[in-house]
Amino acid sequence: MSADLLQALAAVLPPDGLVTDPDVLEAHRHDQAGWAMAGTPRILVRPGSTAEVQAVLRVASAHRVPVVARGAGSGLSGGANAVDGCILLSLTRMNRILELDTQSLFAVVQPGVVNGSLKAAAAERGLWYAPDPASWEFSTLGGNLATNAGGLCCVKYGVTGDSVLGLEVVLADGSVVRTGGRTVKNVAGYDLTRLFIGSEGTLGIITEATLRLRPRPPRATTLVAAFPSLVAAGAAVLDIMKDTRPSLLELMDRATVRAVEKHRPMGLDADAAVLLMARSDAGGEQGVAECARMAAACEAAGSTFVIQSSDEAEGELLMGARRFAFSALEKEGTTLLDDVCVPIARLPELLAGVERIAEARRVLIGTFGHAGDGNMHPTLVFNREDPDEVARAQAAFDDILQVVLDLGGSITGEHGVGVLKRPFLERQLGSETTKLHHTLKAAMDPLGILNPGKLL
Amino acid sequence: MSADLLQALAAVLPPDGLVTDPDVLEAHRHDQAGWAMAGTPRILVRPGSTAEVQAVLRVASAHRVPVVARGAGSGLSGGANAVDGCILLSLTRMNRILELDTQSLFAVVQPGVVNGSLKAAAAERGLWYAPDPASWEFSTLGGNLATNAGGLCCVKYGVTGDSVLGLEVVLADGSVVRTGGRTVKNVAGYDLTRLFIGSEGTLGIITEATLRLRPRPPRATTLVAAFPSLVAAGAAVLDIMKDTRPSLLELMDRATVRAVEKHRPMGLDADAAVLLMARSDAGGEQGVAECARMAAACEAAGSTFVIQSSDEAEGELLMGARRFAFSALEKEGTTLLDDVCVPIARLPELLAGVERIAEARRVLIGTFGHAGDGNMHPTLVFNREDPDEVARAQAAFDDILQVVLDLGGSITGEHGVGVLKRPFLERQLGSETTKLHHTLKAAMDPLGILNPGKLL
Ligand SMILES: Cc1cc2nc3c(=O)[nH]c(=O)nc-3n(C[C@H](O)[C@H](O)[C@H](O)COP(=O)(O)OP(=O)(O)OC[C@H]3O[C@@H](n4cnc5c(N)ncnc54)[C@H](O)[C@@H]3O)c2cc1C
Ligand SMILES: Cc1cc2nc3c(=O)[nH]c(=O)nc-3n(C[C@H](O)[C@H](O)[C@H](O)COP(=O)(O)OP(=O)(O)OC[C@H]3O[C@@H](n4cnc5c(N)ncnc54)[C@H](O)[C@@H]3O)c2cc1C
Repeated sequence: MSADLLQALAAVLPPDGLVTDPDVLEAHRHDQAGWAMAGTPRILVRPGSTAEVQAVLRVASAHRVPVVARGAGSGLSGGANAVDGCILLSLTRMNRILELDTQSLFAVVQPGVVNGSLKAAAAERGLWYAPDPASWEFSTLGGNLATNAGGLCCVKYGVTGDSVLGLEVVLADGSVVRTGGRTVKNVAGYDLTRLFIGSEGTLGIITEATLRLRPRPPRATTLVAAFPSLVAAGAAVLDIMKDTRPSLLELMDRATVRAVEKHRPMGLDADAAVLLMARSDAGGEQGVAECARMAAACEAAGSTFVIQSSDEAEGELLMGARRFAFSALEKEGTTLLDDVCVPIARLPELLAGVERIAEARRVLIGTFGHAGDGNMHPTLVFNREDPDEVARAQAAFDDILQVVLDLGGSITGEHGVGVLKRPFLERQLGSETTKLHHTLKAAMDPLGILNPGKLL
Repeated sequence: MSADLLQALAAVLPPDGLVTDPDVLEAHRHDQAGWAMAGTPRILVRPGSTAEVQAVLRVASAHRVPVVARGAGSGLSGGANAVDGCILLSLTRMNRILELDTQSLFAVVQPGVVNGSLKAAAAERGLWYAPDPASWEFSTLGGNLATNAGGLCCVKYGVTGDSVLGLEVVLADGSVVRTGGRTVKNVAGYDLTRLFIGSEGTLGIITEATLRLRPRPPRATTLVAAFPSLVAAGAAVLDIMKDTRPSLLELMDRATVRAVEKHRPMGLDADAAVLLMARSDAGGEQGVAECARMAAACEAAGSTFVIQSSDEAEGELLMGARRFAFSALEKEGTTLLDDVCVPIARLPELLAGVERIAEARRVLIGTFGHAGDGNMHPTLVFNREDPDEVARAQAAFDDILQVVLDLGGSITGEHGVGVLKRPFLERQLGSETTKLHHTLKAAMDPLGILNPGKLL
């Protein structure tokens, strides 16, 4: 059976498109999610074209073997983790930018192109590819699309899906569909593009994407403010979002600030409950004015310290603490980077809930993230050699998701469900909506070979 | 059978929720699309709640009777047109704004709320509901969602779908699903919200929506420029889109300008090939500067006349010609307002193609629309008492869609497929993508009772 499969795949792929070396397979079993289960793959394939992806899926269908798509494996929910006996389908060899239309402002790319490569190619032509997950230097556009990745720019420019005009997708049976097109508006038929975006490889394999480019925004003005309480910071966020259009609005809680200050002293106020970072890219005088309005909002809400800069290098320095947040927490132990989202008015309650849970479960939790979108990353830090601490961290993880649901939020804002949050999905969706998910999955992948056990 | 159906519906609806008066039925048979076929409905129902919509769909399923959802009936593709023997399901009684959260910036609405009512309620609280179809004063949010309506603001703020956080939808079998939520980011499960948006009542009935509100943008600066050729205007559009973020970028061709000037003389240049209207709402000095940059782009492209104003009243005067465009063409005969979209670099070819077709088919066609999105409304004007002219107009309509497909465009940018463009959809989608549409439709509406014969 296994030999059969190997033969069938060898017949449709070039020799270097097929990997069975156990060490390589082992290295490709996991993404970056802590404690998410991963099975043992049967084989790793590296197709170089849509036709080869089709051929792989036809073989997989014929042999009823699961297929797990994989970009850079930087996911944080176990979405790309192997399932036992699967074909791991790596898209990294399909890494060409096929077209870059500087007039109609779009790029046509293969899924294995790294986010940063497209950003660079666009920048060379004076243009901008907006989506900016913190993993932009290594994550692939295919992975960004399959998870609908977010980032810092979302508060003004939206998530990955908001920059997608069309897709080419290979379905479970090996047929190819093209969704959307090359226009920014398009209502010809159902929005299949969005159906595939965020579907984590469970509905089809993305083999090409047409992505929107934009003019580069003007240089940004940066603001950092410290708050004595969660409530004060929350009030500032609401005031800012009601009145201005920040191009970035980030937050770090006390535990995160302390971790940063410990490992890279920057003179941050370790007693502040929250540090807020905001930017305006409205441009020129307007950017400065918008930043001043945001500073006033912070002060009115009770900020104890506000600093602003229109200088780009200085602005990056101010952002340094935020960019170092996750690395700092990683130095404290094994981490699980969580990802939840609430309506912005509920941010203080979310942060207070996380603090309460950290105390009750005796786990270090540093929370930082995208305040303007209500999208937070409570990061659990624990000693993975200590079973009791691991158990307490897992309990804290569950507690946080329940708090999020109680606040009318979502169990994931940008990292996806994967295996990590699969047990929680129905709690959020309810039974009827879950049933509709299964209906769609069964209709599009009747043999259930696409990334089984993920998301649903 | 018919009596049965009536009885079953009467058992689940209040007396005033059921209409059989032939005159009323006749008045509800059509939307605003020219020459789109409409059947004869069996009955009109006006549910007042989600539970009543569910009850209607259960009866419809049991009796295998088609259900056609209807908002204001202002659609332009025949989407809300009756099919023979159907239940017309009017959502206009479900017209309450259920919640308006000025902190987390969303509104929860019933589908029968008129777009303008939500805009007004948001404005009262200093907020903004962005989507602005020209039909905003009478079209319903349910209709806007079901067609993914566009408008003038899309070039900067996106289409209706870009302002939707979540939906409540009644499925064909009467079950209720809730999609999305109350957060701006959410990747928990498939993007069912977007699947329903633009599905024209063929996948489910939208009974509630959670819509995003935004801060009101700063006052806009307005620009009008005249161009001696299509190519010159096209170059200006590209230059503007590459470099700035206009909050509006509209266009009128010569035929439209002449119709406007004939019926409401404004001193427009009747020899100009194209009139372009642009706005910046970047605010203050930056708005003026952005407008100046757009003016420079127009001049560099060969504009013969550019005028700017930061005064709001004057800006509205400048926009007057564009706002009057469709009404002016309507005075010339019966109209069919078409809706197509191309990549913006192909705009001059599209406009030239339409001019060529108008000449070859001897039909007056005035084209205007959303230049920044490549979304144009070639409007066919004909004498509907003259069968030969009607036939020529229909041939021109077909010709235009073929030109659009040849340019890599979409047969509809914002009005939807409905009945009008159903024969053209597969030409755009291809057979595999069409097949996937049918797979989804069959999975979600196995009896085929939801708006049959529309879109697909
Ligand atoms: C340090 C760090 C920072 C991060 N920051 C962010 C952030 O700011 N925002 C954010 O959203 N995420 C972030 N992530 C998570 C991760 O980088 C993103 O989810 C990214 O989009 C994954 O891309 P990838 O190429 O690594 O995909 P993978 O991890 O390989 O795969 C992700 C999922 O997509 C599927 N998939 C991959 N390619 C395809 C394809 N072509 N067709 C179909 N399915 C496919 C996989 O099956 C899997 O389910 C971060 C991760 C790390 C390690
Ligand atoms: C003068 C004029 C200007 C216009 N300008 C624009 C414009 O700028 N941009 C634009 O996009 N459109 C425009 N339109 C077209 C039309 O107004 C829009 O498509 C609008 O969104 C339709 O809303 P409605 O309430 O009239 O829906 P209807 O016409 O009643 O229905 C439209 C479609 O939606 C379905 N539907 C309605 N309600 C529901 C529901 N609750 N659940 C499920 N399905 C439902 C119907 O079955 C039908 O398929 C214009 C029309 C006119 C007459």
